[in-house]
Amino acid sequence: MRGLMRIAFAAAVIAVALAAGPRAAAADSKLIRKVDAYRQAHEIAIVGELEALTRFRSVAADSSGIVAAASHLEGLLKARGFDTAQLAVPGSMPAVFGSLAVKGAKRTVVYYAHYDGQPVTPSEWASDPFDPVMRSGPIASGESRIDWKHARTPLDPEWRLYGRAVADDKTSIIAFLAAFDALEAMGRSPSVNLKVLWEGEEEAGSRHLAAILRSQAARLNSDLWIIGDGPVHQSRRRMVSFGARGVVGMEATVYGPSRALHDGHYGNWVPNPAAMAAELIAAMRAPDGHVLIPGFLDDVRPLTAAERSAVAALPPVEEQLRREFGIARAESPDGLTASILRPALNVRGIRAGHVGAEAANAIPTDATVSIDFRLVPDQTPARVRQTVESFLRAQGWTVVAQAPGSVTRLAHDRIVKLEWEGGYPAFRSDMTTPAARAVIAAARDAAGGAVAVMPMMGGSVPLYMFDDAFHVPVIGLPVVNHDNNQHAANENIRLQNLWDGITTYAALMSELDW
Amino acid sequence: MRGLMRIAFAAAVIAVALAAGPRAAAADSKLIRKVDAYRQAHEIAIVGELEALTRFRSVAADSSGIVAAASHLEGLLKARGFDTAQLAVPGSMPAVFGSLAVKGAKRTVVYYAHYDGQPVTPSEWASDPFDPVMRSGPIASGESRIDWKHARTPLDPEWRLYGRAVADDKTSIIAFLAAFDALEAMGRSPSVNLKVLWEGEEEAGSRHLAAILRSQAARLNSDLWIIGDGPVHQSRRRMVSFGARGVVGMEATVYGPSRALHDGHYGNWVPNPAAMAAELIAAMRAPDGHVLIPGFLDDVRPLTAAERSAVAALPPVEEQLRREFGIARAESPDGLTASILRPALNVRGIRAGHVGAEAANAIPTDATVSIDFRLVPDQTPARVRQTVESFLRAQGWTVVAQAPGSVTRLAHDRIVKLEWEGGYPAFRSDMTTPAARAVIAAARDAAGGAVAVMPMMGGSVPLYMFDDAFHVPVIGLPVVNHDNNQHAANENIRLQNLWDGITTYAALMSELDW
Repeated sequence: MRGLMRIAFAAAVIAVALAAGPRAAAADSKLIRKVDAYRQAHEIAIVGELEALTRFRSVAADSSGIVAAASHLEGLLKARGFDTAQLAVPGSMPAVFGSLAVKGAKRTVVYYAHYDGQPVTPSEWASDPFDPVMRSGPIASGESRIDWKHARTPLDPEWRLYGRAVADDKTSIIAFLAAFDALEAMGRSPSVNLKVLWEGEEEAGSRHLAAILRSQAARLNSDLWIIGDGPVHQSRRRMVSFGARGVVGMEATVYGPSRALHDGHYGNWVPNPAAMAAELIAAMRAPDGHVLIPGFLDDVRPLTAAERSAVAALPPVEEQLRREFGIARAESPDGLTASILRPALNVRGIRAGHVGAEAANAIPTDATVSIDFRLVPDQTPARVRQTVESFLRAQGWTVVAQAPGSVTRLAHDRIVKLEWEGGYPAFRSDMTTPAARAVIAAARDAAGGAVAVMPMMGGSVPLYMFDDAFHVPVIGLPVVNHDNNQHAANENIRLQNLWDGITTYAALMSELDW
Repeated sequence: MRGLMRIAFAAAVIAVALAAGPRAAAADSKLIRKVDAYRQAHEIAIVGELEALTRFRSVAADSSGIVAAASHLEGLLKARGFDTAQLAVPGSMPAVFGSLAVKGAKRTVVYYAHYDGQPVTPSEWASDPFDPVMRSGPIASGESRIDWKHARTPLDPEWRLYGRAVADDKTSIIAFLAAFDALEAMGRSPSVNLKVLWEGEEEAGSRHLAAILRSQAARLNSDLWIIGDGPVHQSRRRMVSFGARGVVGMEATVYGPSRALHDGHYGNWVPNPAAMAAELIAAMRAPDGHVLIPGFLDDVRPLTAAERSAVAALPPVEEQLRREFGIARAESPDGLTASILRPALNVRGIRAGHVGAEAANAIPTDATVSIDFRLVPDQTPARVRQTVESFLRAQGWTVVAQAPGSVTRLAHDRIVKLEWEGGYPAFRSDMTTPAARAVIAAARDAAGGAVAVMPMMGGSVPLYMFDDAFHVPVIGLPVVNHDNNQHAANENIRLQNLWDGITTYAALMSELDW
């Protein structure tokens, strides 16, 4: 059946191309309604494809799950007539590539997303992260579990499907495929040559992405990258974003006695590493989130006038989010967007000794702090590392890269082991190029109204790599709900965002031209 | 056989009493050698009794293990002719009581120890905490496992038996029983009426001990309490101690967003509870261990001249301990003993988010800090609680006792839930009473030389309760090695300390008179 459809689709491409050339694909007010109608007729099948993809354990801890997901994705592209390949370099997980040439199209767009997910702590989830469950709403909202496979359509658009990576980014992948299917069913030809690149180790720091891009430069050649990562604006408006913060992770371990000691007999005399970890954090980060490390802000590039205007035009969401997150205050008096346009030092976790029923009256042997730095242009991971290490040395720490042996322990007063993740810099794309204007226009058509135009997302995507490798516009087109619990337990996608994603991708495939 | 021995023993008591009265039990230079000889002939059996006792899972998390250990201990006393009882008040674990009247004895001594142990984290242990293992030395010293049950005696006195509570305090209990058996075998009568009280919830804060002492005042009436808890001096000298710090535990939980949030999208704007926990600790405690909470030190009672002299007479151990613990510096420039004679704020543990492979780029929902305050005379847990809570309120925290609901979260900027353990005050006994001098003399006889005389141990034992209830001297007679890993993983007893404990208890049973 797929084979027959492909032939019909190819014929349609030729027909459209002959009739009016690629410009015929420009803004079509009926297109979105038709795509929506297609989706309404296929809701169970579309959610089924998302559910099937979410079942793959594509997380860094399970490379076989990643490999299996890649093969599955390649199969989905092949079935739709794409030329496919799994792109890899030594040591990397596979990136899934697909391309489909469109007769008459003068531009080529690569649609990027990643299919790997953040690590999971299953005990924190309301259900198995890899056995997706549909619920009628957010967790702890009085929601119920839904037997969606036997539900009547249209499905309630406020329902949410729960699973690791379902939002970040498997929904973007499925929305792209469903949009493609809708256009194919309508006999509508894309306005651009289509390429996809679905990465398999974004959540592990995209350590091999630059090498993959470089080694596959000819294959990935294009006029525009569309990055389908991250959530839409908290106002629920669809969003076009022109950058993302960079990131570099660091794990700091500080050392106390070589064995845990009774804190009654030795407390006050033997150094307490849990207290040292607290001092380390408090020395680096002010209560309002500002980073206290000298030089850390030196490289920060100011916003342009266009970027400042875009921020000012965003609808306010702070009061809504305060209520949603159950917080009485923000760390910073600035608004959310202004805050995340600054670099950040996030404490992801601390572990020392024990708490609760396991707490013992002991001085722990060590304490570990997991941190990520979110970077803005023109900070770099290397400079951040240098600045942090210089600061710690100036504060009296001996910085080591390996757990210290007894000789090192006895020689240095305060030892901190720093383990740096690779990380990558931030990137902001020019918001005023023709391609940028075309993408904003297509997103507005799909939305039937205003979209949120963001100079830079707070989250991190290695956009700089695309810029470095290709020097073409790189534009973010996120589709998932902001409250998707991305990176935490109970990650979920709200169905309306999946539906919106399909129309947005349909517009980005069939209306783009510049 | 036990029955026959008991009759023989009773006859011996009468014979000694007739011959010379209780003074005949005064310092006998041959006694210690005879007790040692008895021990050498019974090493496997004595270690066997310690091993059997250590197999009981007598930890707070397992009340059935505590109850079973109590019955076992009662049986050991009954077999030795003691009148026994399990003392309890509603809600308490049983305290094991035994008494043996000695004809002609004018003084009565109660020997206290506890048979419950600290909580365990089995994954941190080199072997099952409740399946004792003998090793040739400390963990990671190149030690080997020993099949001690089939070893030739005398056993190597540097061998160590590993298991939870084996040192804290099950060795004191077995040393007492072995000393009793040795005296019985020698036909030597105790010089005092013997009572024992073995508590079952010391590691859970001795919450019912005061009530047990009050309700059993007649039964527990005595002239002296000997407290067999804690380790001997780090110089390995035997020790007599005249007090112990008090303690009060506190768990503080601080709150961020009501669900974990992507720290790229929200870091810098949504409060980070891991950072807040670090700020909380750093605000309360200086890097040198001094407590920064105003008023915390107001109640501290200065040392007496006798106490200061005793501290000055202790052999220095700091360099040895620095090497042993693998630390280049102490928190405080004062020596160990001076440091632990001050109150302390110990951070026992911190938990927030995740570290290592599980670290996710998320702002955690909360962070928990487990603390114990070590108290000195005349601090009280109630005053400490009041001082800490006042300080936190002054720092802008809203102090709550329950996890906050959404209304509370939205109403208060910085919320900390404080959960206080019962705790108890410190106690220092007069070092100059006749009973004190008699105990020091007996310990010196057993040691055949100097002993360490400590005004107060750093660890906590609820000595104040004995003083409150009975107003008689309360003196600490610890026996276990200082490096026993008390309260931590791989707790162990060095055999020489068990052997020393037996002679010390023998002297304290047969030589005390004042």
